[in-house]
Amino acid sequence: MASVSWQSIVAEKKASIENSIPNDWKIKNAPSEDNLMDFPERCGILSPFDLEVTSLSATELVGRLATGNLKAVDLTLSFCKRAAVAQQLLNCVHLFFPEAALVQARQLDEYYARHNKTVGPLHGLPISLKDQLRVKGTETSMGYVAWVGKRDETDSVLVKLLRQAGAIFYVKTSVPQTLMVCETVNNIIGRTVNPRNKNWSCGGSSGGEGAMVGIRGSVMGVGTDIGGSIRIPAAFNSLFGIRPSHGRLPYAGMANSMEGQETVHSVVGPIAHSIPDLKLFIKSVLEEEPWKFDSKVIPLPWRQNEEEVIKSKITHGGLNIATYHHDSVVLPHPPILRGIDIVRSTLEKNGHNVFSWAPHEHELGVKLINKIYAADGCTDVYKNINASGEPAIPNIKDLLNPDLPKADVNEIWDVQLQKWHYQCAYLDKWRELEEKMGREIDAIIGPISPTAAIRHDQFRYYGYASIFNLLDFSSVVIPVTFADKEKDLKNSNFQPMGKIDAEVQAEYDPEAYHGAPVAVQVVGRRLSEERVLAIAEEISRLL
Amino acid sequence: MASVSWQSIVAEKKASIENSIPNDWKIKNAPSEDNLMDFPERCGILSPFDLEVTSLSATELVGRLATGNLKAVDLTLSFCKRAAVAQQLLNCVHLFFPEAALVQARQLDEYYARHNKTVGPLHGLPISLKDQLRVKGTETSMGYVAWVGKRDETDSVLVKLLRQAGAIFYVKTSVPQTLMVCETVNNIIGRTVNPRNKNWSCGGSSGGEGAMVGIRGSVMGVGTDIGGSIRIPAAFNSLFGIRPSHGRLPYAGMANSMEGQETVHSVVGPIAHSIPDLKLFIKSVLEEEPWKFDSKVIPLPWRQNEEEVIKSKITHGGLNIATYHHDSVVLPHPPILRGIDIVRSTLEKNGHNVFSWAPHEHELGVKLINKIYAADGCTDVYKNINASGEPAIPNIKDLLNPDLPKADVNEIWDVQLQKWHYQCAYLDKWRELEEKMGREIDAIIGPISPTAAIRHDQFRYYGYASIFNLLDFSSVVIPVTFADKEKDLKNSNFQPMGKIDAEVQAEYDPEAYHGAPVAVQVVGRRLSEERVLAIAEEISRLL
Repeated sequence: MASVSWQSIVAEKKASIENSIPNDWKIKNAPSEDNLMDFPERCGILSPFDLEVTSLSATELVGRLATGNLKAVDLTLSFCKRAAVAQQLLNCVHLFFPEAALVQARQLDEYYARHNKTVGPLHGLPISLKDQLRVKGTETSMGYVAWVGKRDETDSVLVKLLRQAGAIFYVKTSVPQTLMVCETVNNIIGRTVNPRNKNWSCGGSSGGEGAMVGIRGSVMGVGTDIGGSIRIPAAFNSLFGIRPSHGRLPYAGMANSMEGQETVHSVVGPIAHSIPDLKLFIKSVLEEEPWKFDSKVIPLPWRQNEEEVIKSKITHGGLNIATYHHDSVVLPHPPILRGIDIVRSTLEKNGHNVFSWAPHEHELGVKLINKIYAADGCTDVYKNINASGEPAIPNIKDLLNPDLPKADVNEIWDVQLQKWHYQCAYLDKWRELEEKMGREIDAIIGPISPTAAIRHDQFRYYGYASIFNLLDFSSVVIPVTFADKEKDLKNSNFQPMGKIDAEVQAEYDPEAYHGAPVAVQVVGRRLSEERVLAIAEEISRLL
Repeated sequence: MASVSWQSIVAEKKASIENSIPNDWKIKNAPSEDNLMDFPERCGILSPFDLEVTSLSATELVGRLATGNLKAVDLTLSFCKRAAVAQQLLNCVHLFFPEAALVQARQLDEYYARHNKTVGPLHGLPISLKDQLRVKGTETSMGYVAWVGKRDETDSVLVKLLRQAGAIFYVKTSVPQTLMVCETVNNIIGRTVNPRNKNWSCGGSSGGEGAMVGIRGSVMGVGTDIGGSIRIPAAFNSLFGIRPSHGRLPYAGMANSMEGQETVHSVVGPIAHSIPDLKLFIKSVLEEEPWKFDSKVIPLPWRQNEEEVIKSKITHGGLNIATYHHDSVVLPHPPILRGIDIVRSTLEKNGHNVFSWAPHEHELGVKLINKIYAADGCTDVYKNINASGEPAIPNIKDLLNPDLPKADVNEIWDVQLQKWHYQCAYLDKWRELEEKMGREIDAIIGPISPTAAIRHDQFRYYGYASIFNLLDFSSVVIPVTFADKEKDLKNSNFQPMGKIDAEVQAEYDPEAYHGAPVAVQVVGRRLSEERVLAIAEEISRLL
């Protein structure tokens, strides 16, 4: 490394991304607007066919592909074009490989022509990947300059299984350096922006996915989440995202920071435009029996009966949902509090039962998970940052402060024990509410972030997301509304609960946040993906 | 502590155990034989009723209790008497509380009389507990002198759920100091012996359970296993035992050494006289939805369909079983090798399909798990040993050598990563064999220990058991035969594969081991309890 400066590695990498976009797909006149959502339709690069197919759901697309009404090669070309436009607008791509994708698409079309059937439930569907998943023959940088240019020799298990199910890979999307930040900035390509307003963050760490799926350069993308990294980008881009519990989907063979850290597992999951698309993804992967490939995956096929339990409650007696507005650490901005109210009133209006959830010692939980992130004194991440000589990105120290000491093994065990006690206490609180109310509580709904899609470099408080990483609860993010300067006035009675609360609330500006996506998360106990998706689907339908 | 010597704590504790046995249950003429199995029948303490009910299976007993043909108080009294005799023969008890058990039994009988129904599937069944599970109002020593006399204020979750299911608690059985040894010796009560021959070990660390259930002072007991501690006592006492995968049964609220160590989890499971009894235990606990109480439990009710898959294979085409005789590290003694041959030939004779399993790098796996046991430089266990001033027991250093350095956090993460890679490689080998043979491989069968029930202080090699702790595979131990000095001659062609192999083989003596129980383990992938129990049931039936 010593002989090549990190700046020259970056310059070469940026040029290679630039060169991967054919000239015909280059934007001639860059838009000056902040909101870029409509630009693909008017840029002149996408045909009416391209615009039509890239506006459909994944579920509709696999239906058309499976009946032979749509060719994989045509669909792939459309998404490649739209992704190329997205990259030029949002700077959301680490690696773009349309030729390889078209080769894959042609093979699938040939298979279909010869056998008159699909290879699997995702036959011909292009799926975008966070630049953490390995695809044989491509590279994985994870936002570290030092990792640029190292070719992967095998697929990650999830990539292998998605490929077996018929998915096509064409792009790897941007992430922040280390992945341990909920915005998307690195020293390789710089900053990825939000398609709804380039002054807002696309979220992170699966921020490239949020932006790319948000502008429909991808119909469905794969992210990972150890503290909100699937859910925050979904929330900031008005998308749906699921953080499955650990062990539901295969993580083996992926790159990572702090590999081998098992106290709180990062998990992998999809970001998409609808709940049915999230279900399509999960069901397709589970059909491949991932537990026979990755030892951390639990042998738990899709449980249709669990989904039916919820459907039956919806039609008989209603769902029982507990909600909360804040975690007693940081008060969310007014648009988020209004989002919770909208969900509550919508549920009540439709015959469901709403209760109040008292968040159990979230401050303690957040302290615990923050200790875990920094347990090795941040040795591993700074080793990878320093390997190229690049500097650390600005807000990395919120979670990864190298001034923290490396924990002792017995201290780690103690943190793990505290985590277990905390998790069990949380389950106790859930049971106690059920006993008090004389009914099963089907889900908890709360904020996923204290803010709507946030202005750059302002993301400070991970606790709303990370508490459920510590608890390993299944969580689905659903879009609710958008910030509205007329409705969401500054909170005039605000009394800060502490320093970070004051800082977060001070960032609110009705004008600057007008139109920013507002989301909530629907949370179930561990490994309750079927139930929580069914609940999220119903609430989205009602909203 | 300083003011009271550990010897005086021990003297008081021993007297209290002695005093907990009523005079009527005291053995007048101690037997001089090595084999004590028949002594309960001829000691004069047990009535014909006592002898009859203590010889039945748990499944039969709960059936009689549920129909009102047997009173909980009568059954409890019978088991208390037999357990008292067992203790005097085998020294297998840390705590005996017949009065509390009889109070519980009377309450259950009253409930039954009033409501004409049971409280749950274990209504009125006495179950013995390893002295690691907490029972409100009793004490848990785990073999540490320093822990003697500290009363527990709550039940462990498993105890709570067993109690809800109707189980009665009357005895806590002996364990080795720390639990990290596969024999049962501590400085509190000394050594527990094998009821079939007092010169043999009862196994460990759930050794008191092995001895107590072995002599039917208990019909079913609860053990734990982080390196063979359920399976070795089951094997050495010709019993059935299951090491479920982590997360199947609740461990929360139990005492432990190295609490918070999560790299390889200790798991809890039953030891009994038959597979149906093991199933009764597991089903009864799962009915209580343990995942709502212990965050580490996976929401996986008993899967009858998984059991049916195996039953259907048994009648259509046969099971597909891969077996191995040795792990390329230590060659088992001749009785064990013959045990494997018996299983193979029995399977083949009955229309099942037998393949050869090539154990994948067990030496590496065993090195990894041994690193994990000692990861904290044994700080935690020696802290607890030293707290009273008691010495360490003799063979503790095999797994817990305090000369090993404390690992660094990044080293722990590296071990965890190696573990995951090893587990995935093992799954790859399993799939490769399936692909090669064109069929699903239903289980692997191999030795659980390189020896039959071993002579005292001779247990040296944990690898046959601990490899499946590292892999977290479900494993059921079944008795196969007994060592036979006529058939199991010394291995005259023996060529040691290494130092430990030579040491283990040198211990074999056809005369000394004549009659010692020989067992194998039936191993399935992670969380395959239903399948592996169904396979073990079929093999036991055929044997």
